[in-house]
Amino acid sequence: MKNYLFPFLKNEKAFFLAYDHGFEHGPSDFNEKNLDPEYILDLAVKGGFTGIVLQKGIAEKYYLNSPYQKKIPLILKLNGKTNLLLDEEPYSAINCSVEYAKKLGAQAVGYTVYLGSKFEAKMFEDFGQIQEKAHHLEMAAILWAYPKPGLENDPKITKYAGRIGLELGADIIKLKYFGEKESFKQAIELAGRTKVVLSGGQKLDEENFLTVVSEVMKLGAIGVAVGRNVWQRENPLEITEKLRKLILKD
Amino acid sequence: MKNYLFPFLKNEKAFFLAYDHGFEHGPSDFNEKNLDPEYILDLAVKGGFTGIVLQKGIAEKYYLNSPYQKKIPLILKLNGKTNLLLDEEPYSAINCSVEYAKKLGAQAVGYTVYLGSKFEAKMFEDFGQIQEKAHHLEMAAILWAYPKPGLENDPKITKYAGRIGLELGADIIKLKYFGEKESFKQAIELAGRTKVVLSGGQKLDEENFLTVVSEVMKLGAIGVAVGRNVWQRENPLEITEKLRKLILKD
Amino acid sequence: MKNYLFPFLKNEKAFFLAYDHGFEHGPSDFNEKNLDPEYILDLAVKGGFTGIVLQKGIAEKYYLNSPYQKKIPLILKLNGKTNLLLDEEPYSAINCSVEYAKKLGAQAVGYTVYLGSKFEAKMFEDFGQIQEKAHHLEMAAILWAYPKPGLENDPKITKYAGRIGLELGADIIKLKYFGEKESFKQAIELAGRTKVVLSGGQKLDEENFLTVVSEVMKLGAIGVAVGRNVWQRENPLEITEKLRKLILKD
Amino acid sequence: MKNYLFPFLKNEKAFFLAYDHGFEHGPSDFNEKNLDPEYILDLAVKGGFTGIVLQKGIAEKYYLNSPYQKKIPLILKLNGKTNLLLDEEPYSAINCSVEYAKKLGAQAVGYTVYLGSKFEAKMFEDFGQIQEKAHHLEMAAILWAYPKPGLENDPKITKYAGRIGLELGADIIKLKYFGEKESFKQAIELAGRTKVVLSGGQKLDEENFLTVVSEVMKLGAIGVAVGRNVWQRENPLEITEKLRKLILKD
Amino acid sequence: MKNYLFPFLKNEKAFFLAYDHGFEHGPSDFNEKNLDPEYILDLAVKGGFTGIVLQKGIAEKYYLNSPYQKKIPLILKLNGKTNLLLDEEPYSAINCSVEYAKKLGAQAVGYTVYLGSKFEAKMFEDFGQIQEKAHHLEMAAILWAYPKPGLENDPKITKYAGRIGLELGADIIKLKYFGEKESFKQAIELAGRTKVVLSGGQKLDEENFLTVVSEVMKLGAIGVAVGRNVWQRENPLEITEKLRKLILKD
Repeated sequence: MKNYLFPFLKNEKAFFLAYDHGFEHGPSDFNEKNLDPEYILDLAVKGGFTGIVLQKGIAEKYYLNSPYQKKIPLILKLNGKTNLLLDEEPYSAINCSVEYAKKLGAQAVGYTVYLGSKFEAKMFEDFGQIQEKAHHLEMAAILWAYPKPGLENDPKITKYAGRIGLELGADIIKLKYFGEKESFKQAIELAGRTKVVLSGGQKLDEENFLTVVSEVMKLGAIGVAVGRNVWQRENPLEITEKLRKLILKD
Repeated sequence: MKNYLFPFLKNEKAFFLAYDHGFEHGPSDFNEKNLDPEYILDLAVKGGFTGIVLQKGIAEKYYLNSPYQKKIPLILKLNGKTNLLLDEEPYSAINCSVEYAKKLGAQAVGYTVYLGSKFEAKMFEDFGQIQEKAHHLEMAAILWAYPKPGLENDPKITKYAGRIGLELGADIIKLKYFGEKESFKQAIELAGRTKVVLSGGQKLDEENFLTVVSEVMKLGAIGVAVGRNVWQRENPLEITEKLRKLILKD
Repeated sequence: MKNYLFPFLKNEKAFFLAYDHGFEHGPSDFNEKNLDPEYILDLAVKGGFTGIVLQKGIAEKYYLNSPYQKKIPLILKLNGKTNLLLDEEPYSAINCSVEYAKKLGAQAVGYTVYLGSKFEAKMFEDFGQIQEKAHHLEMAAILWAYPKPGLENDPKITKYAGRIGLELGADIIKLKYFGEKESFKQAIELAGRTKVVLSGGQKLDEENFLTVVSEVMKLGAIGVAVGRNVWQRENPLEITEKLRKLILKD
Repeated sequence: MKNYLFPFLKNEKAFFLAYDHGFEHGPSDFNEKNLDPEYILDLAVKGGFTGIVLQKGIAEKYYLNSPYQKKIPLILKLNGKTNLLLDEEPYSAINCSVEYAKKLGAQAVGYTVYLGSKFEAKMFEDFGQIQEKAHHLEMAAILWAYPKPGLENDPKITKYAGRIGLELGADIIKLKYFGEKESFKQAIELAGRTKVVLSGGQKLDEENFLTVVSEVMKLGAIGVAVGRNVWQRENPLEITEKLRKLILKD
Repeated sequence: MKNYLFPFLKNEKAFFLAYDHGFEHGPSDFNEKNLDPEYILDLAVKGGFTGIVLQKGIAEKYYLNSPYQKKIPLILKLNGKTNLLLDEEPYSAINCSVEYAKKLGAQAVGYTVYLGSKFEAKMFEDFGQIQEKAHHLEMAAILWAYPKPGLENDPKITKYAGRIGLELGADIIKLKYFGEKESFKQAIELAGRTKVVLSGGQKLDEENFLTVVSEVMKLGAIGVAVGRNVWQRENPLEITEKLRKLILKD
């Protein structure tokens, strides 16, 4: 099959900057500087990231037809939910069509599925359609394969997530890592030709985070999609340099 | 991206007259004069408003092909609900398509989302589709980003609403202000290139309302969408003059 | 806008014969004579009615391509429900498309909404789509704007119904009248350019019914949609003559 | 309107062989011989039936392009349900499109509605669409108008079913008869130009069944759709001869 | 009708290798070797299987445009669910369209229905549409006709499943066998021209499994869809040889 990942890899590795937190977590993740999408896009380019993850609105108003468009490829996140309904079984609705993502300049689309949620069926159906449209338009389909809240530390779910990504035809899956190497390694093996990137998660101290990244790269991940662990730091380029060397070997 | 707001701004500011209350609140908001859409349209033109908000029926019967059409641009509100089901989680269904809004002469469309409602997913999906069709037809997409009942005075929600507007690709968001400056200011910052207008809300005494408008303009709002605070007054043009000067500097 | 009501008015007034009771109430409304659609169609023509209301089946088998088609215009009722589920929140599903109504010779379509029902959102969405298709095909859109069971005598709902008809773009609304003049008059004012016809309701003695009709005409209704009060009488043409003079002044 | 029933009538009467029991009741209705669709098709031809009722699978594998296709017209039953969920409110989903029925050689389609079921709205909507597509493709639309379990012996429902068939635009309705002549007669009158056939029901002794058929024919039914009362007998052609004479007068 | 099964049969018998367990059961079914789709595809070719069952992702990344595509025909399983929600009534959503299956090189599609599940109606509707699209694209439609959990050992359900396959128009049904010969034999008879293959199920000791296969072949099955009973063995080609001789007589 066509290699839809070509635009996003360097030395076969992936280094993505994620910035959909304003939707998922609300404003509490941001400070004065990093609430500004331009600051982030600038960081993405300067930091040598190989892709940036945005929701449609920021892509349309800050990326499309901007100088950034030629400098860093876009992964358009098609679904999202707020954190205002945490007691509900998670389902994250599609707010952007694959066709619109293409118009906004994206070369890949992303979708989150929550394994174990009562809405699994609806989510598999959603992603099934997205994956087909994406490949039809020659875009990569990336699956955020997350456990539903409460199952984060279950090695069975980590492994399951790896395999689901492959079975559903994702080109990349973004997986959470709760520190248990064995299950993460097996998830990668189970994912086969579907590539795995680490979901960066909440901010850790620098050393810890670098250790985590180093671990998952050794376990076979092709890279990381990082957000808070970069742009919540005073000088985000510092850790970015270290991560880039670690991941892209460049 | 294209500036879909061009028809609605004067000196980069927005001064909208809202008149969808007959749907949302029922007839209790009206008196003998202001229940007549012609009275309101006349007021909108005489008062120098830069846009008028109507539901489809009034647009079709009073605005389309009328002299008003050349004098004031139309924002067609696509969804609405009555106040007869206040115990239910709020969801406001679409009763007008974007295409029909275009036929009725609208240059922008509006949609209300209730943050925190159990129907968030459905509403994000609805607005996602509306936003894409609107831009495809070269119309602005305006989001009424409201807290669900009970969350009106939560600064977290105000800020969240600002960001959601940006993430979902709204060109303008209409926000409620409960008097706390800090959160409203941050909402505007979080909204970035998505512009913010104040939701006028229920009738206050004139001085109070002018103070509120003055405050939000200083905080960075580009204007106001006002209804009851204008057309529920004996002489609505009086306060309109004051508001226009305050907002449009004209 | 185009005057979609032209085929249905005489001296600007409306005199409709309604005959969808076999669906809504079951056979209990009928006797040996009036269960026959031909009897009713004959009555409609002889009585000088300006429109007849039918469900699709009767329209297809008794009206389309019959001599009646040239003599009386058809309002095709698009939704309906039985009275077998009275404990449920009311929702009445669409069983006929606007396009099919057109093929059956209809020049208007009708749809019932139950204000206060938990299915309001679905009904507003349904009617929104019907109204657009109807106007696209140059047909009038008529809204049966009824309170849900239990709210029949609430003046607030009567008034709300009038306004909802206008806001949703109905050309005519059919309203119930529970005998309180003030709220019915205000409903008509609130409906503005959307015309109001009385829903005839269950059979009253002749004098009472004529008084009711006389009252609503003075309050500003443009006519009446009557069924049982005409065809449940031994000699329906008698009251029909009186109603026609009262309403059409002819 | 076009006479869609032409292919199915002889001397204006209808004599249908029904064979969808494998779906509705499971295998318990069958024996070694009658479980074979060829046995049934053969019987249909030899017995002089004027139509055969099949689900899509049997039509596709045994009827289409077989010698039977020229000898007996097909009524394709579009929906069906098993008897494994008898505690649920009945709803029977569509498993075959009208277009596919046409491809399979059908000249009519059938659909079951359960009056009084909580899913009435969905079923009226389903049948509404089926009826329109059927007539567009010049096929008859036949409605199985059944009471929901528990209401079988309610004369009100029998009569209602007759009328619903007419109102919804069915060309034929298949009605149950619980032995009360008056309500069945009225159902037929209420159905007007929509024709009524008896639903044969479970196997009775021969004399009883012939009496029932004789009764409903006198009450105005145009025929019968019979299954078990024919093919559950040792020598089905015997009763078939008697029924054919009784019904088709031939 | 066209023989859609032609590509999948040898001596009129079917010998399918199933490999969708990573979706349905998660990774627990796999070991180091058999988690690799290439290992399985290799086995499928070397073992002389007449078809392989895959979900879309593995088909797209390992089969399409690979050397395997010319050596073994593909059955694309269109729906799937995880085992994380076993307390829920089973419903397995579609994640791949029939059209996409065709693009991936499939000549047949598969779909699972759970008899007795509260979602029966939805599943019959799903399969109804799949079956029509599949035949339109000249592909076979295969139905996994399974009892819902708890009904596995009910002979009534086994028989019902056989008939449902025929009534719904499946070309092959995959049935479970719980060891009772009579019901399995009757299921095959009830399925008529719809062919039956055994669902291999969990790993048994070799002798037991060969006995089971031998039994069902004598009862009239045309073959088996086997997964764990082959690829969970140390040397899967050993049992494969025996099965192939038993089933394909070759």
